[in-house]
Amino acid sequence: MNETLRIKRLCLIGVGLIGGSLLRALRRAGVVDEIVGCGRSRDSLEIALKLGVIDRIEQDPVQAVSGADMVVVAVPLGAMQSIFTAIAPVLAADAVLTDVGSAKASVVRAAEQAFADLPGGFVPGHPIAGTEKNGVEASFAELFDGRRVILTPTAQSSSTAVSRTRAMWQACGAEVIEMDITHHDEVLAATSHLPHMLAYSLVDMLARRDDSQEIFDYAAGGFRDFTRIASSDPTMWHDIALANQGALATLLEQFSLDLQKLAEVVREGDSDYLKTLFTRAKQARDEFCETQERGKPAP
Amino acid sequence: MNETLRIKRLCLIGVGLIGGSLLRALRRAGVVDEIVGCGRSRDSLEIALKLGVIDRIEQDPVQAVSGADMVVVAVPLGAMQSIFTAIAPVLAADAVLTDVGSAKASVVRAAEQAFADLPGGFVPGHPIAGTEKNGVEASFAELFDGRRVILTPTAQSSSTAVSRTRAMWQACGAEVIEMDITHHDEVLAATSHLPHMLAYSLVDMLARRDDSQEIFDYAAGGFRDFTRIASSDPTMWHDIALANQGALATLLEQFSLDLQKLAEVVREGDSDYLKTLFTRAKQARDEFCETQERGKPAP
Repeated sequence: MNETLRIKRLCLIGVGLIGGSLLRALRRAGVVDEIVGCGRSRDSLEIALKLGVIDRIEQDPVQAVSGADMVVVAVPLGAMQSIFTAIAPVLAADAVLTDVGSAKASVVRAAEQAFADLPGGFVPGHPIAGTEKNGVEASFAELFDGRRVILTPTAQSSSTAVSRTRAMWQACGAEVIEMDITHHDEVLAATSHLPHMLAYSLVDMLARRDDSQEIFDYAAGGFRDFTRIASSDPTMWHDIALANQGALATLLEQFSLDLQKLAEVVREGDSDYLKTLFTRAKQARDEFCETQERGKPAP
Repeated sequence: MNETLRIKRLCLIGVGLIGGSLLRALRRAGVVDEIVGCGRSRDSLEIALKLGVIDRIEQDPVQAVSGADMVVVAVPLGAMQSIFTAIAPVLAADAVLTDVGSAKASVVRAAEQAFADLPGGFVPGHPIAGTEKNGVEASFAELFDGRRVILTPTAQSSSTAVSRTRAMWQACGAEVIEMDITHHDEVLAATSHLPHMLAYSLVDMLARRDDSQEIFDYAAGGFRDFTRIASSDPTMWHDIALANQGALATLLEQFSLDLQKLAEVVREGDSDYLKTLFTRAKQARDEFCETQERGKPAP
């Protein structure tokens, strides 16, 4: 699997935190010859150029992918289809095309709309990493060190393209796993999308109160940590929520029912229920942290 | 208000993270002559003695409070009443009695049960500080630096006792605020008790799934921060949930409805609703952090 990787020309479409960090990590690994940055914001691209993250700016996706043997699309999920549609006619037959979207079924649907047949070089991917910050200014080479990247190959993905995508992320220090598309979206709905919805909703519920200023004044460190992810980019999360509607809505309904039950239990003063719930949760969370600290188990 | 504080003998009942940190901070300030530690666990008290956090062990609360001019009760909320009942007959008339409970109405009710008349020296208090760790081993002198302590004096609290309690916390580096008892419990339900319930419930919902191991394997930093408070002591939070039943249950019901609505919105793909919600929440959360970084506004 770990063939020697050499990327002659990488085209990154969407030069933000994730894409920028990918480029920095690939530079660090010394596996890429030339990097072309493409995006809507000229200012961001100029910053990326100044930071040495990209070598060249091409604002037109068609020009940008020309001659690239690796194309990484790191735009918000809602912009995937227009990018795919733009580059479909000009993408080199042997180019690898991958993305970093947090939901995968919608990316595959977008590609199906754009390409007459899904290209063998297309390998959807998702690095499980990020911060609540945005923009290439916030990017750093270590973002993927020891983190996981999930690839969700389609039935058409060629083994060569999967290997090259895998090697690219391994060069960034990540552990690469393959997963079924639907399963990816269910797992991520639970571990990432739902928590973001809860953090946004909690902050919003409190912000809408008449005494919101006072409420926030008395919030402590626990609240700060709990709501950190509510500082994430609203557009990105808007797109994710709409890209993973079914799995996310199902979990939101389920959690809403759990909370309704918990409200009853608290009101009734059901001591056993509460003790059991909190003890079980603490145990699961402590085990989760221990597992993380021991290092990730083999995929 | 900032009279020169001198505590001749402080009796701490419940020598854990909060109580231990209070003692370390008072030692640092050099305002206490002798510290008597009282608690159910002999082992914990021996550790506290060895760490120099307390000067003397008294396992019987009646003996422990004897001759103390300051009594701090830092036991879980569910143990408050039995402690108050034990010490009520022997507490010195001019002693200050305070606590560190995270809900205040239940502490006042417990005191009302224990004392024929609420003593003038009784000043309920709540330091807004903590970590998810427990025990005197985890205590540190800086825990209250720049943090807030809320005092909720009763109608019977003497101004002298309030002043001394205030001075004690100020000596620990805290900012001290007074608040109405009911209002305290409502504010804390929103900023602290509800988030803890959400973190416990989320971890528990995921832990109950068949694929829970995999779910936790793919969780990232956001999930870790979001659920940090689910590693808190289950007994303590059981007590808090039961001590603040009304305010907490009301918020849980409200949040459950908010999530039900959000589930509908996600399923329908209501783009505007989602964008507005996330944008409003991010703005509120960013402002909250800025306010915290600027330092707390004057009370």
